[in-house]
Amino acid sequence: MKKIKTANYDICFGIEGYAVLGQYLNEKKYSKIIILTDSNCNEHCLPHFLSNLPTHILFEIIEIEPGEEFKNLEIFTGILQTMTELEADRKSVMITVGGGVVSDLGGFVASVYMRGIDCINIPTTLLAMVDASVGGKTGVDLEGIKNCVGTFSMPRMVIVDTSYLETLNGRQIRAGYAEMLKHGLIYDAAYYDYLKDISNIDFEDLSLLIFHSVYIKNEIVSQDPEESGLRKILNFGHTVGHAIESYFLTQNNKNPLLHGEAVAVGMVIEAYISTQLSSFSKDDYEDIKKTIHNIYEKVQIQADDIEQILSWIKFDKKNYNGNIYSVLLSNKGKAEYDFLISKDLVIRGFKEYLK
Amino acid sequence: MKKIKTANYDICFGIEGYAVLGQYLNEKKYSKIIILTDSNCNEHCLPHFLSNLPTHILFEIIEIEPGEEFKNLEIFTGILQTMTELEADRKSVMITVGGGVVSDLGGFVASVYMRGIDCINIPTTLLAMVDASVGGKTGVDLEGIKNCVGTFSMPRMVIVDTSYLETLNGRQIRAGYAEMLKHGLIYDAAYYDYLKDISNIDFEDLSLLIFHSVYIKNEIVSQDPEESGLRKILNFGHTVGHAIESYFLTQNNKNPLLHGEAVAVGMVIEAYISTQLSSFSKDDYEDIKKTIHNIYEKVQIQADDIEQILSWIKFDKKNYNGNIYSVLLSNKGKAEYDFLISKDLVIRGFKEYLK
Repeated sequence: MKKIKTANYDICFGIEGYAVLGQYLNEKKYSKIIILTDSNCNEHCLPHFLSNLPTHILFEIIEIEPGEEFKNLEIFTGILQTMTELEADRKSVMITVGGGVVSDLGGFVASVYMRGIDCINIPTTLLAMVDASVGGKTGVDLEGIKNCVGTFSMPRMVIVDTSYLETLNGRQIRAGYAEMLKHGLIYDAAYYDYLKDISNIDFEDLSLLIFHSVYIKNEIVSQDPEESGLRKILNFGHTVGHAIESYFLTQNNKNPLLHGEAVAVGMVIEAYISTQLSSFSKDDYEDIKKTIHNIYEKVQIQADDIEQILSWIKFDKKNYNGNIYSVLLSNKGKAEYDFLISKDLVIRGFKEYLK
Repeated sequence: MKKIKTANYDICFGIEGYAVLGQYLNEKKYSKIIILTDSNCNEHCLPHFLSNLPTHILFEIIEIEPGEEFKNLEIFTGILQTMTELEADRKSVMITVGGGVVSDLGGFVASVYMRGIDCINIPTTLLAMVDASVGGKTGVDLEGIKNCVGTFSMPRMVIVDTSYLETLNGRQIRAGYAEMLKHGLIYDAAYYDYLKDISNIDFEDLSLLIFHSVYIKNEIVSQDPEESGLRKILNFGHTVGHAIESYFLTQNNKNPLLHGEAVAVGMVIEAYISTQLSSFSKDDYEDIKKTIHNIYEKVQIQADDIEQILSWIKFDKKNYNGNIYSVLLSNKGKAEYDFLISKDLVIRGFKEYLK
């Protein structure tokens, strides 16, 4: 079985991971397993998970509605209340089975229930496999502000079982793929070049590429787990991307974007800003823009929208003293952080994206 | 200036602490100070605090209602929302000025806002000085279950300024005193013997005794910050005490007890159980009972109440697999943890307390 060892936990790849998990659960003598999942995963993923899990420990299932709009403090409170009703104690373990919303929420709940119980992540989406379930960032949105409330709290184990990807549609796969492109852009130019033409990638490739993305993410996180410096580079595309996502999430007349779709737009705009404030070449920017436009439908953004999206940027966690700080590319495969950027440049970035 | 250094932060005693704090704030270049306080402290303590704080950093005040009934996830959510409105960022610092409710709530908010900002505690009650503001336990109650949701998150500094004690009434002083008696009972027999006759203690003594209590608490916490073992002994009196507190808090026809008042009852009952399950002597138990009855009015508890109080005990964080585990005394000044106790013994303890 392939495995990536982090400082705190193992990320197991493939169906052999369940045997490791079963052994771990029994050794730790957990009093109870609380499985957090959403209604989609409960139907499509949980049967596979439960039929593969070798343990006799009692489990309970908490199901939430799917979607980023439910990643909030109200649902967080509801899950905590349900856990007391289920008499979860400090020796209970949370297992999240789902995408990024489930692992972010479940990880946050686990990190504060009785001041912290163990959490294990079973990501079922590409995005959660390559990003959300690894690295210990947990949290919820607050009135649309992305991940405004949460903790750094490492899981005890992650199982990356790509058979869950068969339950996803193309849109969901492409959304997760954006984070993989990001890994290439900030850390590994050859990886990015390999990923550029998504039509070349088959399912078998994807499993190997997921491993490589998790490897890169872990390399970065292990050097700076609580994001005092280097880890910020994983935020490339997110200063603008989160603002776009928050805006679409809170507008009644817009369909919410998936996280990766918003980050894809953010990467184009931040790559453009990189040509203005860093040494990033115009050619590489054009290449990124073309790559993103080939994979993702262009998001319709009007002048009015841009103004309102900008008002969300102030909530980015990398900001301070009222200034916007962003991650920029100096070269393909190399990112730097703490660049002060202006709203004007972001507006120009949007115009470049829409051209 | 007297100071206790912990592994992570300094506890400064006396008015000289403010100069240290001012220097610290300026060195850290915080973008903004968020002061959390309650309406009582805003009136009686904040003028003293602000007039002594040498800093030019902008501050904002968030005021909550006083009382344990407001230490919940609704107020927690409200404070977080207010912080986004005040545009607090990751380089902002939370300063709590108040009693245990304020430092528990503020510490929890600080530990999760943008995945964690710094927090500094200025305790204004005896209970907060000797217990709540030191040691990094933060949290809120959930539907009456004490501290069911929270984090272990160390403050960056604590200032113990006993001049705030002049704002307290005798009942509040006695409530805090219960935690000091506990420090003696679990760790230092001579200290307990010194504290027994509260009529001997004057204000000057109290300052020295607070220092000693904080010293004891820090000795214990520093060996086991996240309560995997030894730190549990600080919970002496709390298995039963928290259940009593939760019961009185959630009954409309009862006046809530102060935390220390409930713990005082809990200590008598758990000392009685110690005579049954551990080597604790009957004479020492009688001595504790007499001491508590001398200081605190006997709490009126009927047979009906006991039954309902027992139903709260199951939520104690030291429990697992549906069993109740408690801290017991083996000798005066010596506690041990993880004793399995029965509901019957707790009932007998209540009867002994009420005799």
